[in-house]
Amino acid sequence: MGAATTTGRSLTAIVLAAGKGTRMRSDLPKVLHAVAGRTMLGHVLAAARAAGAGRIAVVVEPGQAAVAREIEAAAPGAAVFPQAERLGTAHAVLAARTILAEADDDVIVAFGDTPLVTGDTLARLRAPLADGAAVAVLAFDTPNPKGYGRVLTEGGRVVAIREEKDASDSERAVTLCNAGLMALSGAHALALLDRIGNANAAGEYYLPDAVGLAVADGLTVAVVAVDEAEAQGVNDRVQLAVAEAEIQVRLRRAAQIGGATLVAPETVFLSVDTVLGRDVLVEPHVVFGSGVTVGDGCTIHAFSHLEGASLAPGVAVGPYARLRPGAVLETGAKVGNFVEIKNAHLGAGAKANHLTYLGDAEIGAGANVGAGTITCNYDGVNKHRTTIGAGAFIGSNTALVAPVTVGAGAIVGAGSVISADVADDALAVSRARQRSLADWAPGKRAALAAEKAARAKS
Amino acid sequence: MGAATTTGRSLTAIVLAAGKGTRMRSDLPKVLHAVAGRTMLGHVLAAARAAGAGRIAVVVEPGQAAVAREIEAAAPGAAVFPQAERLGTAHAVLAARTILAEADDDVIVAFGDTPLVTGDTLARLRAPLADGAAVAVLAFDTPNPKGYGRVLTEGGRVVAIREEKDASDSERAVTLCNAGLMALSGAHALALLDRIGNANAAGEYYLPDAVGLAVADGLTVAVVAVDEAEAQGVNDRVQLAVAEAEIQVRLRRAAQIGGATLVAPETVFLSVDTVLGRDVLVEPHVVFGSGVTVGDGCTIHAFSHLEGASLAPGVAVGPYARLRPGAVLETGAKVGNFVEIKNAHLGAGAKANHLTYLGDAEIGAGANVGAGTITCNYDGVNKHRTTIGAGAFIGSNTALVAPVTVGAGAIVGAGSVISADVADDALAVSRARQRSLADWAPGKRAALAAEKAARAKS
Amino acid sequence: MGAATTTGRSLTAIVLAAGKGTRMRSDLPKVLHAVAGRTMLGHVLAAARAAGAGRIAVVVEPGQAAVAREIEAAAPGAAVFPQAERLGTAHAVLAARTILAEADDDVIVAFGDTPLVTGDTLARLRAPLADGAAVAVLAFDTPNPKGYGRVLTEGGRVVAIREEKDASDSERAVTLCNAGLMALSGAHALALLDRIGNANAAGEYYLPDAVGLAVADGLTVAVVAVDEAEAQGVNDRVQLAVAEAEIQVRLRRAAQIGGATLVAPETVFLSVDTVLGRDVLVEPHVVFGSGVTVGDGCTIHAFSHLEGASLAPGVAVGPYARLRPGAVLETGAKVGNFVEIKNAHLGAGAKANHLTYLGDAEIGAGANVGAGTITCNYDGVNKHRTTIGAGAFIGSNTALVAPVTVGAGAIVGAGSVISADVADDALAVSRARQRSLADWAPGKRAALAAEKAARAKS
Repeated sequence: MGAATTTGRSLTAIVLAAGKGTRMRSDLPKVLHAVAGRTMLGHVLAAARAAGAGRIAVVVEPGQAAVAREIEAAAPGAAVFPQAERLGTAHAVLAARTILAEADDDVIVAFGDTPLVTGDTLARLRAPLADGAAVAVLAFDTPNPKGYGRVLTEGGRVVAIREEKDASDSERAVTLCNAGLMALSGAHALALLDRIGNANAAGEYYLPDAVGLAVADGLTVAVVAVDEAEAQGVNDRVQLAVAEAEIQVRLRRAAQIGGATLVAPETVFLSVDTVLGRDVLVEPHVVFGSGVTVGDGCTIHAFSHLEGASLAPGVAVGPYARLRPGAVLETGAKVGNFVEIKNAHLGAGAKANHLTYLGDAEIGAGANVGAGTITCNYDGVNKHRTTIGAGAFIGSNTALVAPVTVGAGAIVGAGSVISADVADDALAVSRARQRSLADWAPGKRAALAAEKAARAKS
Repeated sequence: MGAATTTGRSLTAIVLAAGKGTRMRSDLPKVLHAVAGRTMLGHVLAAARAAGAGRIAVVVEPGQAAVAREIEAAAPGAAVFPQAERLGTAHAVLAARTILAEADDDVIVAFGDTPLVTGDTLARLRAPLADGAAVAVLAFDTPNPKGYGRVLTEGGRVVAIREEKDASDSERAVTLCNAGLMALSGAHALALLDRIGNANAAGEYYLPDAVGLAVADGLTVAVVAVDEAEAQGVNDRVQLAVAEAEIQVRLRRAAQIGGATLVAPETVFLSVDTVLGRDVLVEPHVVFGSGVTVGDGCTIHAFSHLEGASLAPGVAVGPYARLRPGAVLETGAKVGNFVEIKNAHLGAGAKANHLTYLGDAEIGAGANVGAGTITCNYDGVNKHRTTIGAGAFIGSNTALVAPVTVGAGAIVGAGSVISADVADDALAVSRARQRSLADWAPGKRAALAAEKAARAKS
Repeated sequence: MGAATTTGRSLTAIVLAAGKGTRMRSDLPKVLHAVAGRTMLGHVLAAARAAGAGRIAVVVEPGQAAVAREIEAAAPGAAVFPQAERLGTAHAVLAARTILAEADDDVIVAFGDTPLVTGDTLARLRAPLADGAAVAVLAFDTPNPKGYGRVLTEGGRVVAIREEKDASDSERAVTLCNAGLMALSGAHALALLDRIGNANAAGEYYLPDAVGLAVADGLTVAVVAVDEAEAQGVNDRVQLAVAEAEIQVRLRRAAQIGGATLVAPETVFLSVDTVLGRDVLVEPHVVFGSGVTVGDGCTIHAFSHLEGASLAPGVAVGPYARLRPGAVLETGAKVGNFVEIKNAHLGAGAKANHLTYLGDAEIGAGANVGAGTITCNYDGVNKHRTTIGAGAFIGSNTALVAPVTVGAGAIVGAGSVISADVADDALAVSRARQRSLADWAPGKRAALAAEKAARAKS
């Protein structure tokens, strides 16, 4: 390609997202199914933006409000075009005719159900246009080309895309296959698309036919290679899981190369926005939902589940830590097993090690939250906050009825229900006196056994 | 095979289950080891019944009462024949001589340690008998045939099964191998088996020798193909895990095709009877024990473990939800993290979101069960029920001492121990008054530090 | 090799552990990164000892105190030699010149970053020396030899190790590659190493050059084969995870062959010292940290995490059991879901089934610990013990404030805070009286709703 440059060239992306997705067997539009915590359509829109698309048009099934919302969220300002009839991919692209007519330099056609295609790949796909190509097709090499359209080339230029049914034996032996994505020069795109006909068995207008028309016009058609895995589309939930697995491989590898140890990477699930620092240790069986940032030197023990959480360097959580959105842990904080943190800030060195729920709370530096502590943040209607001061000690099995404040350095006795504020350095306790009845148990056991026997008889 | 039909033909299945299983290194009989929550023998008996077996005989190791119980549970009425001596597979089949003598149409010989063979495969195996074959052998093609008996064919008919040690070089190059399972015409079965001799190194009677005898008689011997994976027997725990993995692949794929998203299918474990509805979302790391039904649109978050549970459409559980037998969740119910439900019914929209144990309980629609709630259902001898009315609010860290009823719309204060019934719309609370000692903590900390120092010295 | 014997021959192992490990992107020295719960260096030192090394020298990066500590822990008495300059592998070995000079019989050179090499392999590597070889090189066969030094042989003897850049086309076709590890006769080792020069592009002294020198001297150089996987070194965290996976495959397989069922072995993580008895059942998703012993017939349910725990035969734990160091469970003990046990002994048949924390505790035989029980073992400064007698019954949601003793056969009422000892067979309870306010809830709900409305307005 020589010194291809896209600098200064405009890019219009047209994303086809109107597929029925029947094989998904879902009430959810296909392109809204998610991989790695982002919808397939979201992945494609992100890739288009990363490739430099200043203008984006999405062709959608009419009446899918959820798709429109996702487009607005992922690519604000994108134009949305309903495709009323389903007459083939070229017909779908032409649903965005008004955008196409205004395209200056480069146009890319992508698909809402190929979530693995990266921005880099789209940038490579458009690059030949800057070198004078009228069209560039994305193609992958595969040992099992059966069923795919073959990309026929001569001297590095594409001469045709041949559908399997039309291919000669020697053409069928070609292993370079059309991935579907295409870049077109803005100067030619609309004219080429308008000339595509539907004289075929299905009576549909096929986008790959643009290649033959361009070649016939003496225009250059380039081919850009992509990994087979990256090019795969998703048509059912088996393929959805394959796409998820592929993107997880990418995310894990990037985390490892960046300096995080994943003891068993195949059991760790990341989101596209997960940030893991250097010398982070992630044990087996950990799930990172979206919005997680983990600082250098943190340890995430096995069976932990993090979402919307922020960990300063040197924090350890788990095993069985459940961090929900708004969990913010400062350096040296420790969240142990069977502990849930939601919308709560733990100061440096604060600890909640066992069987605890901290929601809507501020925990001061160095505070120790005993096992079985519960912040009663919900009264059935409203949520309230709990504040625990620095260095406070909350005895085990304590219920903190929010809104409530425990002062710095205060001590709360085990088993208390704290519904009134506790002053700094005070002791607070709500506990009934321990009473005993000597030699009471044998009689009770006899009575229970008699009850059991009576039940068995009846 | 032409228009093979089994309609109207009787089927007798003889299942060989007398293997010693020494390599399992187990006190449990080999055929009782489980895959996907069902014993290997149970899988084979289910397949035999699915293939239409009206009569089933199982040949067992003498004295294994547990095997007899499993047979009665999986195939009630099946005949059980102990094999006193172990003199080869043909000898084993003849332990069921009385059944064989009464077989009218089709006979199938299957093995208790090949749990992956499906009812469809057995049906395919018997099909050639309806077309006039006297014997049909099940065979798989493999790139590594070493050690297997090769199936030699001419014109689609089997001419011999050649053991590796007896095979010529060209015969060893054959990659079609004997899977062991066989179908025999009832008209010929007993006569063929009785003629099998033991003139071999081990002095044993081998079932595959029936093929040579049938061919010598001019009878037709058909071959039916099966995947190599499906045909594998289990002889040690490595192979047991391989079988489990294979059946999990099947179960996951069926769930996906049916419309369930398994984000990471390789981390989800299903039972043979798991039912997942359409648009069910299963996050990574989920285990389904036996007897689980999940309605349309449910979400099963990561790290959940379900067994004997029934979820109405639109229910969400987990992460870390533990549903045990008798858990019944109505639409919109929510079971959150570190919550265990056993033999309890949660009405529509009822919620138990954190660190809770609900056992032997009825939870009314819309009730909110606070974090750390425990139903004290066991008094050390007997189990008792807890009833919570619709719309009730149970404050956090509450113990409900069963038998007890909390009325509809009632409110229970946090940290209570409720041992007496609470009326509808009442407030109930058992809580000691909160007391404070100002400036008490510094002295306490000093005393504790002194204690520590004293310990360190001693 | 004939009847190679190492009996009576001394072995000196020189372990090169001075690599920078830049690609690990870690503050931790590369050789201290762990696989299966043991540092890479620890694995190599253990293998050297298993191969019979009476003397061990480790060549290290100067100034890494943590490496020195690990050496002393894993191979007490090993000599440590800092390598001040990094001038190649032969130069590194010569950092241990004083040890090399004293080597009598066999010398092995191993690497701190090849943690998968076993003691058996090292023993095989030194074996040719007993048969008269001066040098033995460890080599693996691979379909992708690119980049490796090829081991060129004639008549089973090594004639050269050829680096890829120096290899002819026919030499490049050789698939036998140098693994790096080498055994040398003590009689020749120092002399050979001293003659290695640095006349190469990098100006470094390369250990494989010893082969050419030995061949030129007419000495015998043997080759010993090893699996490609076992020979792999670890240079980044992707490779670290590959090594972990490989060793897990080994550990799982050994457990299975020994008679443990791993339902889904790929989801179970073992440590090098994990001991699983016969007929142990391990469900999916289980992590064994170091120091775990599981007796015959135990069941480890899904999502359990064990570390430093000892289980007598017939114990069942989990799902979601968290056993920490010092957890000792006697026969028939049961630890259920969301239960953490630390430094605690559970007598035969003792049960803690739900949402419980038992730390620093002695639980008598047959005791029943109710759901939500917490041992308050930490007062913020010191740890204290809890003792529960045989057959005692601890009601749910109880806090036991240590140091405290509950006598044998005693009963503790639900929701109690027990801070004073309870006598044998006594009933102990600390519970406030349950009070009720009839028809209170509707007004409260109205007030809360009004509060919510007011907030929404503001």
